[in-house]
Amino acid sequence: MIKGNLDKAFTYLESGAVLLVCVSEGKKDNVMTVSWQMVLDFTPLIAICSGSWNESFEAILRTKQCCLCVPAADMIEKAVGIGTIHGSQCDKFKHFNLKKQKPAKVKAPLIGGCLAAIECKLTDYIEPYGILVLKGVQLWENPLKKERRIIHANGDGTFFADGEFYNLREKMRERLPEGVERL
Amino acid sequence: MIKGNLDKAFTYLESGAVLLVCVSEGKKDNVMTVSWQMVLDFTPLIAICSGSWNESFEAILRTKQCCLCVPAADMIEKAVGIGTIHGSQCDKFKHFNLKKQKPAKVKAPLIGGCLAAIECKLTDYIEPYGILVLKGVQLWENPLKKERRIIHANGDGTFFADGEFYNLREKMRERLPEGVERL
Repeated sequence: MIKGNLDKAFTYLESGAVLLVCVSEGKKDNVMTVSWQMVLDFTPLIAICSGSWNESFEAILRTKQCCLCVPAADMIEKAVGIGTIHGSQCDKFKHFNLKKQKPAKVKAPLIGGCLAAIECKLTDYIEPYGILVLKGVQLWENPLKKERRIIHANGDGTFFADGEFYNLREKMRERLPEGVERL
Repeated sequence: MIKGNLDKAFTYLESGAVLLVCVSEGKKDNVMTVSWQMVLDFTPLIAICSGSWNESFEAILRTKQCCLCVPAADMIEKAVGIGTIHGSQCDKFKHFNLKKQKPAKVKAPLIGGCLAAIECKLTDYIEPYGILVLKGVQLWENPLKKERRIIHANGDGTFFADGEFYNLREKMRERLPEGVERL
Protein backbone atom coordinates (compact mmCIF):
# COMPACT_ATOMS: atom_id res chain seq x y z
CA MET A 1 0.00 0.00 0.00
CA ILE A 2 1.09 3.58 -0.61
CA LYS A 3 0.23 6.78 1.20
CA GLY A 4 -2.96 8.50 0.01
CA ASN A 5 -4.78 11.78 0.46
CA LEU A 6 -6.52 11.74 3.85
CA ASP A 7 -9.45 13.74 2.40
CA LYS A 8 -10.47 10.58 0.55
CA ALA A 9 -10.36 8.24 3.52
CA PHE A 10 -14.09 8.47 4.26
CA THR A 11 -14.93 7.20 0.75
CA TYR A 12 -13.61 3.76 1.76
CA LEU A 13 -15.98 3.64 4.74
CA GLU A 14 -19.21 5.41 3.85
CA SER A 15 -20.70 2.54 1.85
CA GLY A 16 -20.63 0.32 4.93
CA ALA A 17 -17.36 -1.57 4.46
CA VAL A 18 -16.58 -4.49 6.74
CA LEU A 19 -13.40 -3.42 8.58
CA LEU A 20 -10.42 -5.26 10.04
CA VAL A 21 -9.38 -3.19 13.04
CA CYS A 22 -5.74 -3.67 14.03
CA VAL A 23 -4.22 -2.87 17.41
CA SER A 24 -0.85 -3.27 19.06
CA GLU A 25 0.22 -3.44 22.68
CA GLY A 26 3.96 -3.75 22.68
CA LYS A 27 4.77 -7.26 21.45
CA LYS A 28 1.16 -8.33 21.07
CA ASP A 29 -0.81 -7.38 17.94
CA ASN A 30 -4.46 -8.19 17.47
CA VAL A 31 -7.24 -7.63 14.94
CA MET A 32 -11.04 -7.70 15.06
CA THR A 33 -13.75 -7.56 12.40
CA VAL A 34 -16.24 -4.69 12.70
CA SER A 35 -19.20 -3.78 10.53
CA TRP A 36 -20.88 -1.32 12.90
CA GLN A 37 -19.08 1.80 11.67
CA MET A 38 -20.11 5.28 10.53
CA VAL A 39 -18.47 8.39 9.09
CA LEU A 40 -18.98 11.46 11.34
CA ASP A 41 -17.33 14.14 9.19
CA PHE A 42 -14.90 14.60 6.30
CA THR A 43 -11.75 15.28 8.37
CA PRO A 44 -12.45 12.28 8.86
CA LEU A 45 -13.94 11.53 12.23
CA ILE A 46 -15.16 7.94 12.30
CA ALA A 47 -17.33 6.06 14.79
CA ILE A 48 -17.06 2.34 15.39
CA CYS A 49 -19.31 0.45 17.78
CA SER A 50 -18.12 -2.61 19.65
CA GLY A 51 -17.76 -3.83 23.22
CA SER A 52 -15.54 -5.38 25.82
CA TRP A 53 -16.22 -8.91 24.52
CA ASN A 54 -13.64 -7.92 21.89
CA GLU A 55 -10.12 -7.89 23.25
CA SER A 56 -9.15 -5.39 20.54
CA PHE A 57 -11.83 -2.96 21.69
CA GLU A 58 -10.24 -2.85 25.14
CA ALA A 59 -6.82 -2.48 23.50
CA ILE A 60 -7.98 0.64 21.63
CA LEU A 61 -9.20 2.14 24.92
CA ARG A 62 -5.78 1.44 26.46
CA THR A 63 -3.53 2.45 23.55
CA LYS A 64 -5.73 5.25 22.09
CA GLN A 65 -4.99 4.21 18.50
CA CYS A 66 -5.72 1.61 15.83
CA CYS A 67 -5.72 1.01 12.06
CA LEU A 68 -8.94 0.49 10.13
CA CYS A 69 -8.19 -1.83 7.22
CA VAL A 70 -10.64 -2.32 4.35
CA PRO A 71 -10.57 -5.87 2.99
CA ALA A 72 -11.80 -6.62 -0.53
CA ALA A 73 -14.05 -9.49 -1.59
CA ASP A 74 -11.08 -11.87 -1.97
CA MET A 75 -10.60 -11.65 1.83
CA ILE A 76 -14.14 -12.44 2.96
CA GLU A 77 -13.28 -15.83 4.46
CA LYS A 78 -10.44 -14.26 6.43
CA ALA A 79 -12.66 -11.39 7.61
CA VAL A 80 -15.24 -13.85 8.93
CA GLY A 81 -12.56 -16.05 10.48
CA ILE A 82 -11.00 -13.08 12.28
CA GLY A 83 -14.44 -12.20 13.61
CA THR A 84 -15.09 -15.65 15.04
CA ILE A 85 -11.80 -16.43 16.80
CA HIS A 86 -10.80 -14.76 20.06
CA GLY A 87 -7.41 -13.04 20.18
CA SER A 88 -6.42 -15.09 23.22
CA GLN A 89 -6.65 -18.32 21.16
CA CYS A 90 -3.90 -17.55 18.67
CA ASP A 91 -1.86 -14.88 16.90
CA LYS A 92 -4.46 -13.96 14.31
CA PHE A 93 -1.89 -12.38 11.97
CA LYS A 94 -0.03 -15.69 11.73
CA HIS A 95 -3.14 -17.86 11.75
CA PHE A 96 -4.72 -15.98 8.84
CA ASN A 97 -1.44 -15.26 7.06
CA LEU A 98 -1.94 -11.48 7.17
CA LYS A 99 0.98 -9.50 5.79
CA LYS A 100 1.82 -6.71 8.21
CA GLN A 101 2.94 -3.33 6.94
CA LYS A 102 4.47 -0.57 9.05
CA PRO A 103 2.23 2.40 9.88
CA ALA A 104 3.45 5.99 9.66
CA LYS A 105 1.74 7.79 12.52
CA VAL A 106 0.34 5.29 15.01
CA LYS A 107 1.46 2.09 16.71
CA ALA A 108 -0.80 -0.56 15.16
CA PRO A 109 -0.07 -2.69 12.09
CA LEU A 110 -1.63 -2.27 8.65
CA ILE A 111 -2.69 -5.35 6.66
CA GLY A 112 -0.85 -5.07 3.37
CA GLY A 113 -3.30 -7.06 1.26
CA CYS A 114 -6.25 -4.75 1.94
CA LEU A 115 -7.77 -2.18 -0.44
CA ALA A 116 -7.01 0.65 1.96
CA ALA A 117 -6.11 1.36 5.55
CA ILE A 118 -6.68 4.38 7.78
CA GLU A 119 -4.42 5.04 10.74
CA CYS A 120 -6.52 6.47 13.58
CA LYS A 121 -6.18 8.11 16.97
CA LEU A 122 -8.91 7.62 19.58
CA THR A 123 -10.41 11.02 20.42
CA ASP A 124 -13.51 10.11 22.44
CA TYR A 125 -15.42 7.16 23.92
CA ILE A 126 -19.19 7.36 24.16
CA GLU A 127 -19.47 4.67 26.79
CA PRO A 128 -23.24 4.10 27.02
CA TYR A 129 -23.24 2.91 23.40
CA GLY A 130 -19.75 1.43 23.07
CA ILE A 131 -18.92 4.05 20.43
CA LEU A 132 -15.26 4.79 19.81
CA VAL A 133 -14.69 8.13 18.06
CA LEU A 134 -11.58 7.91 15.88
CA LYS A 135 -9.71 10.59 13.97
CA GLY A 136 -8.10 9.40 10.76
CA VAL A 137 -4.51 10.65 10.53
CA GLN A 138 -3.08 8.72 7.55
CA LEU A 139 -4.64 7.00 4.54
CA TRP A 140 -3.00 4.09 2.74
CA GLU A 141 -4.26 2.87 -0.64
CA ASN A 142 -3.55 -0.19 -2.76
CA PRO A 143 -4.05 1.05 -6.33
CA LEU A 144 -2.54 -2.07 -7.94
CA LYS A 145 -4.85 -4.54 -6.20
CA LYS A 146 -7.08 -6.15 -8.81
CA GLU A 147 -10.03 -7.06 -6.60
CA ARG A 148 -11.72 -3.67 -5.95
CA ARG A 149 -15.02 -4.81 -4.48
CA ILE A 150 -15.67 -3.91 -0.83
CA ILE A 151 -17.58 -6.34 1.45
CA HIS A 152 -20.80 -5.50 3.30
CA ALA A 153 -22.25 -7.56 6.17
CA ASN A 154 -26.00 -8.00 6.49
CA GLY A 155 -25.61 -9.06 10.12
CA ASP A 156 -27.27 -12.44 9.60
CA GLY A 157 -24.14 -14.31 8.48
CA THR A 158 -24.57 -13.25 4.85
CA PHE A 159 -22.61 -10.66 2.91
CA PHE A 160 -22.65 -8.76 -0.37
CA ALA A 161 -19.75 -7.46 -2.41
CA ASP A 162 -20.08 -4.19 -4.32
CA GLY A 163 -22.18 -4.83 -7.44
CA GLU A 164 -23.59 -2.50 -10.08
CA PHE A 165 -21.90 0.92 -10.12
CA TYR A 166 -23.69 4.27 -10.47
CA ASN A 167 -22.01 7.62 -11.11
CA LEU A 168 -24.28 10.48 -10.03
CA ARG A 169 -21.54 13.03 -9.38
CA GLU A 170 -22.98 15.70 -11.66
CA LYS A 171 -26.32 15.62 -9.84
CA MET A 172 -24.60 15.89 -6.46
CA ARG A 173 -21.77 18.26 -7.39
CA GLU A 174 -22.83 21.05 -5.00
CA ARG A 175 -22.98 18.73 -2.00
CA LEU A 176 -19.64 16.98 -2.46
CA PRO A 177 -16.22 17.88 -1.13
CA GLU A 178 -13.80 18.34 -4.03
CA GLY A 179 -11.23 15.84 -5.24
CA VAL A 180 -12.37 12.83 -3.22
CA GLU A 181 -13.06 10.22 -5.90
CA ARG A 182 -12.55 6.75 -4.46
CA LEU A 183 -10.04 4.58 -6.37
CA MET B 1 -45.31 -3.19 2.97
CA ILE B 2 -46.36 -5.55 5.75
CA LYS B 3 -45.36 -5.69 9.40
CA GLY B 4 -42.18 -7.67 10.11
CA ASN B 5 -40.27 -9.03 13.09
CA LEU B 6 -38.40 -6.15 14.74
CA ASP B 7 -35.50 -8.49 15.57
CA LYS B 8 -34.60 -8.47 11.87
CA ALA B 9 -34.66 -4.70 11.43
CA PHE B 10 -30.90 -4.27 11.85
CA THR B 11 -30.22 -6.63 8.92
CA TYR B 12 -31.56 -3.96 6.55
CA LEU B 13 -29.08 -1.40 7.92
CA GLU B 14 -25.84 -3.14 8.83
CA SER B 15 -24.51 -3.40 5.28
CA GLY B 16 -24.52 0.40 5.00
CA ALA B 17 -27.83 1.05 3.26
CA VAL B 18 -28.59 4.53 1.97
CA LEU B 19 -31.67 5.62 3.97
CA LEU B 20 -34.63 7.87 3.27
CA VAL B 21 -35.51 9.39 6.64
CA CYS B 22 -39.12 10.56 6.87
CA VAL B 23 -40.49 13.06 9.38
CA SER B 24 -43.80 14.76 10.01
CA GLU B 25 -44.74 17.96 11.80
CA GLY B 26 -48.51 18.21 11.67
CA LYS B 27 -49.42 18.99 8.07
CA LYS B 28 -45.85 19.12 6.80
CA ASP B 29 -44.00 15.93 5.90
CA ASN B 30 -40.37 15.87 4.84
CA VAL B 31 -37.69 13.37 3.90
CA MET B 32 -33.88 13.42 3.75
CA THR B 33 -31.26 11.02 2.40
CA VAL B 34 -28.70 9.73 4.90
CA SER B 35 -25.80 7.35 4.45
CA TRP B 36 -23.97 8.03 7.71
CA GLN B 37 -25.76 5.41 9.80
CA MET B 38 -24.70 2.61 12.15
CA VAL B 39 -26.32 -0.19 14.12
CA LEU B 40 -25.66 0.12 17.89
CA ASP B 41 -27.34 -3.08 19.12
CA PHE B 42 -29.86 -5.73 18.12
CA THR B 43 -32.91 -4.25 19.89
CA PRO B 44 -32.27 -2.28 17.54
CA LEU B 45 -30.67 0.95 18.62
CA ILE B 46 -29.53 2.84 15.54
CA ALA B 47 -27.29 5.91 15.15
CA ILE B 48 -27.62 8.37 12.29
CA CYS B 49 -25.33 11.35 11.82
CA SER B 50 -26.51 14.57 10.21
CA GLY B 51 -26.77 18.25 11.04
CA SER B 52 -28.92 21.33 11.16
CA TRP B 53 -28.36 22.03 7.43
CA ASN B 54 -31.01 19.33 7.02
CA GLU B 55 -34.50 20.54 7.88
CA SER B 56 -35.50 16.95 8.65
CA PHE B 57 -32.71 16.63 11.21
CA GLU B 58 -34.19 19.54 13.16
CA ALA B 59 -37.65 18.02 12.76
CA ILE B 60 -36.50 14.78 14.41
CA LEU B 61 -35.12 16.78 17.35
CA ARG B 62 -38.50 18.53 17.69
CA THR B 63 -40.83 15.57 17.12
CA LYS B 64 -38.61 12.83 18.66
CA GLN B 65 -39.51 10.31 15.95
CA CYS B 66 -38.95 9.34 12.33
CA CYS B 67 -39.11 6.46 9.86
CA LEU B 68 -35.98 5.00 8.29
CA CYS B 69 -36.90 3.73 4.82
CA VAL B 70 -34.57 1.48 2.82
CA PRO B 71 -34.75 2.17 -0.92
CA ALA B 72 -33.69 -0.47 -3.44
CA ALA B 73 -31.54 0.06 -6.53
CA ASP B 74 -34.59 1.03 -8.63
CA MET B 75 -34.91 4.17 -6.47
CA ILE B 76 -31.35 5.46 -6.69
CA GLU B 77 -32.23 8.53 -8.77
CA LYS B 78 -34.96 9.47 -6.29
CA ALA B 79 -32.63 8.94 -3.32
CA VAL B 80 -30.05 11.28 -4.85
CA GLY B 81 -32.73 13.81 -5.82
CA ILE B 82 -34.14 13.84 -2.29
CA GLY B 83 -30.64 14.46 -0.97
CA THR B 84 -30.00 17.45 -3.20
CA ILE B 85 -33.26 19.44 -2.84
CA HIS B 86 -34.08 21.37 0.32
CA GLY B 87 -37.44 20.65 1.98
CA SER B 88 -38.35 24.34 1.84
CA GLN B 89 -38.27 24.23 -1.99
CA CYS B 90 -41.11 21.75 -2.51
CA ASP B 91 -43.15 18.90 -1.07
CA LYS B 92 -40.61 16.16 -1.73
CA PHE B 93 -43.23 13.40 -1.49
CA LYS B 94 -45.18 14.95 -4.36
CA HIS B 95 -42.12 16.03 -6.33
CA PHE B 96 -40.60 12.53 -6.29
CA ASN B 97 -43.94 10.71 -6.46
CA LEU B 98 -43.35 8.83 -3.20
CA LYS B 99 -46.28 6.68 -2.13
CA LYS B 100 -46.95 7.33 1.55
CA GLN B 101 -48.05 4.52 3.81
CA LYS B 102 -49.42 4.93 7.34
CA PRO B 103 -47.10 4.03 10.20
CA ALA B 104 -48.25 2.00 13.22
CA LYS B 105 -46.40 3.48 16.18
CA VAL B 106 -44.96 6.89 15.27
CA LYS B 107 -46.09 10.02 13.46
CA ALA B 108 -43.95 10.02 10.31
CA PRO B 109 -44.83 8.52 6.93
CA LEU B 110 -43.41 5.34 5.43
CA ILE B 111 -42.49 5.20 1.75
CA GLY B 112 -44.47 2.28 0.33
CA GLY B 113 -42.13 1.46 -2.54
CA CYS B 114 -39.09 0.78 -0.34
CA LEU B 115 -37.61 -2.61 0.58
CA ALA B 116 -38.21 -2.02 4.26
CA ALA B 117 -38.97 0.71 6.77
CA ILE B 118 -38.24 1.03 10.48
CA GLU B 119 -40.38 3.26 12.67
CA CYS B 120 -38.13 4.89 15.27
CA LYS B 121 -38.30 6.95 18.45
CA LEU B 122 -35.49 9.37 19.27
CA THR B 123 -33.89 8.29 22.56
CA ASP B 124 -30.75 10.42 22.69
CA TYR B 125 -28.84 13.18 20.88
CA ILE B 126 -25.04 13.20 21.02
CA GLU B 127 -24.73 16.84 20.09
CA PRO B 128 -20.96 17.25 19.57
CA TYR B 129 -21.13 14.78 16.68
CA GLY B 130 -24.67 15.33 15.37
CA ILE B 131 -25.53 11.73 16.27
CA LEU B 132 -29.21 10.90 16.73
CA VAL B 133 -29.76 7.69 18.69
CA LEU B 134 -32.96 6.01 17.50
CA LYS B 135 -34.84 3.02 18.89
CA GLY B 136 -36.60 0.93 16.25
CA VAL B 137 -40.18 0.17 17.36
CA GLN B 138 -41.74 -1.36 14.22
CA LEU B 139 -40.34 -3.06 11.12
CA TRP B 140 -42.14 -3.06 7.76
CA GLU B 141 -41.02 -5.33 4.91
CA ASN B 142 -41.90 -5.53 1.25
CA PRO B 143 -41.50 -9.26 0.44
CA LEU B 144 -43.13 -8.98 -3.00
CA LYS B 145 -40.80 -6.26 -4.30
CA LYS B 146 -38.73 -7.70 -7.14
CA GLU B 147 -35.70 -5.38 -6.88
CA ARG B 148 -33.94 -6.64 -3.71
CA ARG B 149 -30.58 -4.86 -4.05
CA ILE B 150 -29.77 -2.23 -1.41
CA ILE B 151 -27.84 0.94 -2.38
CA HIS B 152 -24.52 2.02 -0.83
CA ALA B 153 -23.01 5.51 -1.16
CA ASN B 154 -19.26 5.93 -1.52
CA GLY B 155 -19.55 9.59 -0.53
CA ASP B 156 -17.98 10.88 -3.76
CA GLY B 157 -21.19 10.94 -5.80
CA THR B 158 -20.89 7.28 -6.80
CA PHE B 159 -22.85 4.31 -5.51
CA PHE B 160 -22.89 0.53 -5.59
CA ALA B 161 -25.84 -1.82 -5.43
CA ASP B 162 -25.51 -5.17 -3.63
CA GLY B 163 -23.57 -7.54 -5.87
CA GLU B 164 -22.20 -11.03 -5.31
CA PHE B 165 -23.83 -12.81 -2.34
CA TYR B 166 -21.96 -14.88 0.26
CA ASN B 167 -23.59 -17.12 2.85
CA LEU B 168 -21.21 -17.74 5.77
CA ARG B 169 -23.88 -18.46 8.39
CA GLU B 170 -22.47 -21.82 9.42
CA LYS B 171 -19.06 -20.31 10.19
CA MET B 172 -20.64 -17.51 12.22
CA ARG B 173 -23.46 -19.46 13.88
CA GLU B 174 -22.24 -18.90 17.47
CA ARG B 175 -22.03 -15.14 17.01
CA LEU B 176 -25.43 -14.55 15.41
CA PRO B 177 -28.77 -13.80 17.01
CA GLU B 178 -31.30 -16.50 16.01
CA GLY B 179 -33.94 -16.17 13.33
CA VAL B 180 -32.81 -12.90 11.75
CA GLU B 181 -32.27 -13.85 8.11
CA ARG B 182 -32.81 -10.79 5.92
CA LEU B 183 -35.44 -11.25 3.19
